[in-house]
Amino acid sequence: MTARPVLGILGGGQLAQMMALEAIPLGIQCHIYDPDPVAPGRLCAIHHCAAYDDTSALLRFAAAVDVITYEFENIPMSCVTFLNTHKPIMPGITALQMCQDRLTEKTFARSLGFVTAPFVDLVPTLSSSDALRTVGAPAILKTRRMGYDGKGQQTIQNAEELDVARAAYGSYELILEGMVHFRHEVSIITARAQDGTTVRYPLIQNTHRQGILRTSLAPAPCRTTELEALADQIASTVLDALGYVGVLTIECFVVDAPGGSTLVINEFAPRVHNSGHWSIEGATTSQFAYHVRAVMGLRIDPPELRGYSALCNLIGDEPAHSDIPVGVSIHRYHKTPRPGRKVGHLTITTTDHTALQHTIEVCNQLIGVRIT
Amino acid sequence: MTARPVLGILGGGQLAQMMALEAIPLGIQCHIYDPDPVAPGRLCAIHHCAAYDDTSALLRFAAAVDVITYEFENIPMSCVTFLNTHKPIMPGITALQMCQDRLTEKTFARSLGFVTAPFVDLVPTLSSSDALRTVGAPAILKTRRMGYDGKGQQTIQNAEELDVARAAYGSYELILEGMVHFRHEVSIITARAQDGTTVRYPLIQNTHRQGILRTSLAPAPCRTTELEALADQIASTVLDALGYVGVLTIECFVVDAPGGSTLVINEFAPRVHNSGHWSIEGATTSQFAYHVRAVMGLRIDPPELRGYSALCNLIGDEPAHSDIPVGVSIHRYHKTPRPGRKVGHLTITTTDHTALQHTIEVCNQLIGVRIT
Repeated sequence: MTARPVLGILGGGQLAQMMALEAIPLGIQCHIYDPDPVAPGRLCAIHHCAAYDDTSALLRFAAAVDVITYEFENIPMSCVTFLNTHKPIMPGITALQMCQDRLTEKTFARSLGFVTAPFVDLVPTLSSSDALRTVGAPAILKTRRMGYDGKGQQTIQNAEELDVARAAYGSYELILEGMVHFRHEVSIITARAQDGTTVRYPLIQNTHRQGILRTSLAPAPCRTTELEALADQIASTVLDALGYVGVLTIECFVVDAPGGSTLVINEFAPRVHNSGHWSIEGATTSQFAYHVRAVMGLRIDPPELRGYSALCNLIGDEPAHSDIPVGVSIHRYHKTPRPGRKVGHLTITTTDHTALQHTIEVCNQLIGVRIT
Repeated sequence: MTARPVLGILGGGQLAQMMALEAIPLGIQCHIYDPDPVAPGRLCAIHHCAAYDDTSALLRFAAAVDVITYEFENIPMSCVTFLNTHKPIMPGITALQMCQDRLTEKTFARSLGFVTAPFVDLVPTLSSSDALRTVGAPAILKTRRMGYDGKGQQTIQNAEELDVARAAYGSYELILEGMVHFRHEVSIITARAQDGTTVRYPLIQNTHRQGILRTSLAPAPCRTTELEALADQIASTVLDALGYVGVLTIECFVVDAPGGSTLVINEFAPRVHNSGHWSIEGATTSQFAYHVRAVMGLRIDPPELRGYSALCNLIGDEPAHSDIPVGVSIHRYHKTPRPGRKVGHLTITTTDHTALQHTIEVCNQLIGVRIT
């Protein structure tokens, strides 16, 4: 057996699974590192089942792989810095640190000249009323770290509520963000190779409910030439500033601006992203293939879209195969369904916009969620 | 963990690997059974590494899976009949027996009213000169069983040569086939679900060299309305006659006929086929997805092609990623290259016929094989 390149993935969920499914045809084998014995990625990768602070397991993992990446940004930094002394970690530690903390990511975005929501670092010495005066009420209280799918977030109406909430969060570091009155939510999914080549999908339009992504449309119906140009500028500026390698996702709000609309940066995810899952069917190169190619030092070429795509998350439940409309692809993650848990997704890709609308209606009924 | 359906695959080569890669998103896990410790399918399936006559390993395999299929037709029949007493085998044993033997497959094709090359069963009592008189000289001597990629075949010019060859083959059962003067080689790839639904790709045009498939074009440039209608008739007649479930491949010759051309059936493969690998990128449902869906009792819907596709086999050697033209996908099988061994394939899919021709030229140079 000729030695084949091996990619190590921290985290073994559905994102790792979909990366491994793309890696194999490229001649790359994946190892996942995940303490969950039934991590979905185990189906198509070697599974290192151990805790993130198990140094001997981490050493074995590092020894088995050529490059290390990750499928979630909330990895303990101690784990990552330890591994990085043994094997290259991509995207790098700088990007990971930036994205782990809502305060640093917003500060970073502003330092590059881009717009974010108003925010303040809720240091203990800052009074709740002063904080609310800065960002405006109502506001959103968020933990600086470890938030995902709307977890660690709370809407705040006044200083009293904020006092109570701050006390409840105890020693957690917090950030207070002003509300953004947005027209749409979009994501920028972009990738940068080791040679500095960058690629980007058109803007993707997202619908969330209860903090969880429900549906994505690609390309975004709300896109304009101006918004795409701004997305290009954001993507290339951020990627270059970080010397980034891999797929980067930037979630933005589309807000009214003089003469049109503009993008307000909400958050970064230094990884493949749920809003890009449609790209498996909907583009000639999926986000998973881009990420694998980039971190493994392969060339990346611009994507071509195969038409209009829609993504519907399957949350808490999976439809029977027989109920899935003709022309719709299902991806099941092999996870036990429970309320609020992402267990799969549906993708519709078509060159016929009328057919897309019709199929979306059928999926809406199937999963009980409205795709706008 | 909810119980998920499990598909067992006899043989763990690249066909099993590509089936497993399609099965996972459908929520199906695969087990492969292959005595080769580095069988390519092991990367995305549970590997039962044991001999085909190891009954206790076969029992463990049968116990672990819900349905059994196979990726090659030369499985020992004793293995298949043993397994079939424990779990359903699809496509069924009837189809497998028919396809394992060149004599029965040609007899079967003729019994349904279709054309094959002239042939005779070379029983010991039939003289070489009588045999050659029946099919015409030159002719092709083939073993009835276990042939693939041109192995077990030999061109025969006269009775003396045939005598020598028959003696050399010893106790092997042999068939003598007349030469077919064909314009093109094509394959019919069709699938039948458990509910009797059938689907079919358009005709695929193949180029062989030294008995090994080199390139396939889909749809076949030589196709006509008449040939496609005949292909439909052949596919549905054969599938229904066998009560077939899964993907079936029928290799045919295109020959001149009064007023046009017709199809001469050459051989059947009761499985996914090398000439269908383009369908991963080139069709909305790949041949691997069809096979998995059919044998697991799922619905199958007609394919839509994504344009023109070309497949180039990588035989004995693999190109570097950096040498692969833009717009071309590579599939590496994780096999050690050696002369004559299929180690991967390239696929080009485009809606632009001019771009297809150009990319084919670049691939021709890359792999040193001419795609016609």
